[in-house]
Amino acid sequence: MAGPRGEYRKSAERRAQILDAAFAVFAKNGYTASSVNEIARAVGITQTGVLHHFAGGKIALLRAVLEQRDARAEGVLEARRGRDFLLGLVEISRAQAAQRGVVQLYRNLSAEAVDPDHPAHEYFHARLERIADAVTRAFAEVRDDGGLRDGVDPRTAALRTIAMTEGLELLWLNGFDVDMADDIRDFIDGYLVDPL
Amino acid sequence: MAGPRGEYRKSAERRAQILDAAFAVFAKNGYTASSVNEIARAVGITQTGVLHHFAGGKIALLRAVLEQRDARAEGVLEARRGRDFLLGLVEISRAQAAQRGVVQLYRNLSAEAVDPDHPAHEYFHARLERIADAVTRAFAEVRDDGGLRDGVDPRTAALRTIAMTEGLELLWLNGFDVDMADDIRDFIDGYLVDPL
Repeated sequence: MAGPRGEYRKSAERRAQILDAAFAVFAKNGYTASSVNEIARAVGITQTGVLHHFAGGKIALLRAVLEQRDARAEGVLEARRGRDFLLGLVEISRAQAAQRGVVQLYRNLSAEAVDPDHPAHEYFHARLERIADAVTRAFAEVRDDGGLRDGVDPRTAALRTIAMTEGLELLWLNGFDVDMADDIRDFIDGYLVDPL
Repeated sequence: MAGPRGEYRKSAERRAQILDAAFAVFAKNGYTASSVNEIARAVGITQTGVLHHFAGGKIALLRAVLEQRDARAEGVLEARRGRDFLLGLVEISRAQAAQRGVVQLYRNLSAEAVDPDHPAHEYFHARLERIADAVTRAFAEVRDDGGLRDGVDPRTAALRTIAMTEGLELLWLNGFDVDMADDIRDFIDGYLVDPL
């Protein structure tokens, strides 16, 4: 018999199913063109069923999808510093090559979210600032350890590393023959005394 | 009195108005979330009025907007080779800093169009291949003129230059303090014996 514990497990499973479906729908269509109805159909439940788990509707689903993904990536970088942090960026790129949907989701949403009226505008803006600050800090730590080439500014190096990562993702999504992780490592090495 | 010539002029003006409105609506919302109705409202005419000028509907509007923009950019590069072509890329970046809407339109659409089912998928894919081939050719010409640093592969240099351009656009659209044209020039200079 399904007691309270069984009910809880079933509810958590259903929630995870809904998040997987929301992820797939957002990755394919972007946020604006997606609907709660379409996500509900993908799970095989009603719109009301989805809203039972995510009362905030479409924007609540988006937040939950993004927070889940970002938490995983930030877990890789947590407690790392300097060169070790930069190596973490390469590892994330390597992992992403197996997750085309994730890359496409971020690209689609971050493009839409440039519009200040977009519901995820603040989220994406804050996320990019957070990444830029963290990568700048890592390059500054490498400099303090004597590992940065002469004349390299940590902030400039950080922004260009992020720009290169974003641009390589676009080429890769479009079927160009680029190895995102190797190219990023190579690019970062251009700033370092000793290669990663 | 408006004779046939006056009618023609009025029709061309209306067509240009519709294209401007389509450009603005697509730049804001992307393709999928835009509608012919919204474009018609922006011009102050009916949907039927728009379809009179663009019988193919929304996809015909998109094609016309993209072709108009790409023709302008390709005009800048036409008949240039080697270093002069690379300098043209820097000039295009400089001009784009005054055209936020254009940059946002391409970013929005190119993100959506990664999906093979998107009506502009083939267009964007072919466009990116064309750009990659043209930039590769320019770097190869520089190499043949003895102007490329030892060990630089023209194709790799081209793909990374494109990736950097795309990535800098994302940061710039998000309000980061990057000078796209200076940064691209600086990046290209890293491959050259003498700076641009």
